[in-house]
Amino acid sequence: MASIAMDSSSSSSSPSALYPPPAVPIKLHIENREKLLKHLRENLSSSSRPLHGFVLLQGGEEQTRYCTDHEDLFRQESYFAYLFGVREPGFYGAIDVDTGKSILFAPRLPAEYAVWMGKIKSLSYFEETYMVDKAYFTDEITQALTNQYQGSGKPLLFLLHGLNTDSNNFSKPAGFEGIENFETDLKTLHPILTECRVLKSKLELAVIQYANDISSEAHVEVMRKIKPGMKEYQLESIFLHHTYFYGSCRHCSYTCICATGDNSSVLHYGHAAAPNDRTFIDGDMALLDMGAEFYFYASDITCSFPVNGKFTSNQRLIYNAVLDAHDAVISSMKPGVNWVDMHKLAEKIILQTLQKESLLVGDVDEMMVERLGSVFMPHGLGHLMGLDTHDPGGYLQGFKKPKEPGLKSLRTSRDLLDGMVITVEPGCYFIDALLVPAMESPKTSKFFNRDAITKFRGFGGVRIESDLYVTADGCLNMTKVPRKIEDVEAVMGGAPWPIKKSFYGYENGGS
Amino acid sequence: MASIAMDSSSSSSSPSALYPPPAVPIKLHIENREKLLKHLRENLSSSSRPLHGFVLLQGGEEQTRYCTDHEDLFRQESYFAYLFGVREPGFYGAIDVDTGKSILFAPRLPAEYAVWMGKIKSLSYFEETYMVDKAYFTDEITQALTNQYQGSGKPLLFLLHGLNTDSNNFSKPAGFEGIENFETDLKTLHPILTECRVLKSKLELAVIQYANDISSEAHVEVMRKIKPGMKEYQLESIFLHHTYFYGSCRHCSYTCICATGDNSSVLHYGHAAAPNDRTFIDGDMALLDMGAEFYFYASDITCSFPVNGKFTSNQRLIYNAVLDAHDAVISSMKPGVNWVDMHKLAEKIILQTLQKESLLVGDVDEMMVERLGSVFMPHGLGHLMGLDTHDPGGYLQGFKKPKEPGLKSLRTSRDLLDGMVITVEPGCYFIDALLVPAMESPKTSKFFNRDAITKFRGFGGVRIESDLYVTADGCLNMTKVPRKIEDVEAVMGGAPWPIKKSFYGYENGGS
Repeated sequence: MASIAMDSSSSSSSPSALYPPPAVPIKLHIENREKLLKHLRENLSSSSRPLHGFVLLQGGEEQTRYCTDHEDLFRQESYFAYLFGVREPGFYGAIDVDTGKSILFAPRLPAEYAVWMGKIKSLSYFEETYMVDKAYFTDEITQALTNQYQGSGKPLLFLLHGLNTDSNNFSKPAGFEGIENFETDLKTLHPILTECRVLKSKLELAVIQYANDISSEAHVEVMRKIKPGMKEYQLESIFLHHTYFYGSCRHCSYTCICATGDNSSVLHYGHAAAPNDRTFIDGDMALLDMGAEFYFYASDITCSFPVNGKFTSNQRLIYNAVLDAHDAVISSMKPGVNWVDMHKLAEKIILQTLQKESLLVGDVDEMMVERLGSVFMPHGLGHLMGLDTHDPGGYLQGFKKPKEPGLKSLRTSRDLLDGMVITVEPGCYFIDALLVPAMESPKTSKFFNRDAITKFRGFGGVRIESDLYVTADGCLNMTKVPRKIEDVEAVMGGAPWPIKKSFYGYENGGS
Repeated sequence: MASIAMDSSSSSSSPSALYPPPAVPIKLHIENREKLLKHLRENLSSSSRPLHGFVLLQGGEEQTRYCTDHEDLFRQESYFAYLFGVREPGFYGAIDVDTGKSILFAPRLPAEYAVWMGKIKSLSYFEETYMVDKAYFTDEITQALTNQYQGSGKPLLFLLHGLNTDSNNFSKPAGFEGIENFETDLKTLHPILTECRVLKSKLELAVIQYANDISSEAHVEVMRKIKPGMKEYQLESIFLHHTYFYGSCRHCSYTCICATGDNSSVLHYGHAAAPNDRTFIDGDMALLDMGAEFYFYASDITCSFPVNGKFTSNQRLIYNAVLDAHDAVISSMKPGVNWVDMHKLAEKIILQTLQKESLLVGDVDEMMVERLGSVFMPHGLGHLMGLDTHDPGGYLQGFKKPKEPGLKSLRTSRDLLDGMVITVEPGCYFIDALLVPAMESPKTSKFFNRDAITKFRGFGGVRIESDLYVTADGCLNMTKVPRKIEDVEAVMGGAPWPIKKSFYGYENGGS
């Protein structure tokens, strides 16, 4: 065992065509602010409210581990990152609705900071780096905003307060000493800013494309290095190394799911209580759901393949059922198409294959009525993606989540719009906790071919996940990994995979 | 530039002699509990208090990123990890002072958990895995402890409440529904349990040794792969990959400090606002402070060397000043030796070298009186290390931190004890923010040879850090990296580095 994993080829990294990573222009955030201003002003005008006041957001703070001084690596809050692109903790940012001027408020650091944390940057440094009109210290918020205010009475602050429909948590409105000198509006900003984030700009798409490219390349790297006898976490390590070493991706979009064998039927495997620590063996399938974060923006990619590089007929059956669903959804996606319909389309194609291959018996439409698809795919078909892996905006205010099995897991039920980025991630799993009750239920037991299904108990599952960008008349797949069985087997056998350097819309950086 | 970093040799990983990582026996935590019980009972007896009640600790909870459902990778709270070794979130743990029996309380998970997060483990699974006498659900705490209690009146709970002298934060005492049915004692437990953690057991030492071995090997890996033209974060990536791929280390003990050139004079470089993103060039020094966490336990290692593999005479001068200090301290360490004296010893040796080499002029003892050492080494000489990188217990209750420059940064002022693990990390830095005022001060300006010092402005700094285990009559260096200049240059030139597999005191695991 040790000799296999200690083979240096199992951890050597192939050269990358994607190094050095591109330098992202700060213009991305200027455009984001302009977009917000436009929509906020339209909203105020349409309700006959004056165009006065400030959007005020509070950036993230550093966190320590429990009672210790262990500092977790800081990652900026996403709404704040969207508008300002600031990588440092402890900031506030404002936009003057009247003039459009942008203001950053930086923490006033003690002189000692320079010794421990690095040169104390001047306010003008922040003005230039983040291209805002003005920078002050955070203890100057009240004075700066009061001086700038053009309206009458107390200045009005538009603060961020609203529900994240994935977590059911509320965003935290900015708070600071002196806030009692302002009027505050907690309702207007959140839905408008969230909707701005739903529709990606060209510059945002370029960043997401790079996150996808480097993550795609890292998935291919894992395909090339995987061998029976390795540990699941070694695949995670290869992925993380490739995306950081070549792509400068210090954060992952989410904890890597490196599931092999029956673990691949655990949808969110890989967390601390199930930490990618199995030694996998010849004959196992792997389900690898891994995406790097590049410049705040996520990627989210799942590849499924046999760890020995050759599909068995059973593996081929389930894999192609899922791939057909994946491809059919992508072929159908365009603005106006409803996401619940896409979910059902994926379910139906998977059920049709299982019926054609005699794992299921009976009428597929009848299975759909009984929501049988949710037994094999209990999660939603996909979710909006951007600064967050599960990007907000999946449910507009007042919308209700579906309640039916499977559909209730959907993170959005919206119609597609030109500019959305959304994952397409159908899956087919053999999960005892769902399969056994469904095979016993009077409503669904008749659909199962027990002998055939029994052969797949312990198979685990297959998920195929790509990130799609909805265009004016269709969609573009941003994920560039081998998908067809012949391509997967060829790449795992050593064939090159032709990822060409994308056109990112701006010059490459790196000096 | 790109061609250098894309050379596959710069990211390929050498085979490791340390794979597979050892399986750590849960007995480690049983011993920890026994040790606590012994000292707690002694404490109660000595103040004529009854030997009744329960130690009750609350384990860590999972955290989400801001308002989103992004879950950070869970890491157990260290006091809880010490006593119970539980890797899952949401637990409580109790020890019956009377009988010595240990109890775990596991969260009651909804049936849906099985689909998303994995098989729901039974209470008997937790009893067996973590070798406790009994497991219940967290909603049974009140009933279980009340039933078990042998004393009269309300059962007494010893809760964890006390100051972390590094962070100035207080640990969070356990809280649960029904706590009003108990008497609580917030004072007794914290100092006793903290002192238990200060003195490491043999099983703990074996774990810390493995963390040191895999991290040492990863440092050597970086020395072999470093080349001018790379980015600092690529060194971090090589380190993380080696310790995870071969050592199963999913967490780092702290954010990697990969500082080159003048960045190496920033003591805590590498954080989000200074994120290891410089491209380093021929002639730069690198200061790499990186340590992997293995099975909850830290390592903390710093290596300094020229990125091109050959020391210049100036680099040699500063490096040897620090290495002499490092070696002199280690030679002097044994039980009873005071840590402030060790700090001053390191300072003195560095000042002596700087004076001998004509960067400083005048009497070294006089420099010591003026605390000139703190200009070149503003941080403390070292800190206790264990489950936390900055392990608690550095200042006993009632002790005051020194106030003098340099000494005020010390994380402990204690006398060494047999069983402590402590870092020895002298450094010599050219930090403008300290150097300029000292060269202008009437008290210290006379000591500086301005012409000589000027040549070192922009040099950055050198730190050499090892982890030491204090024995009955001296100490053992757990860190196994090349230190002598000839060894560093040889390893960087391709020579093998003889890390032999340590004797960990228990069988290797991995299947």
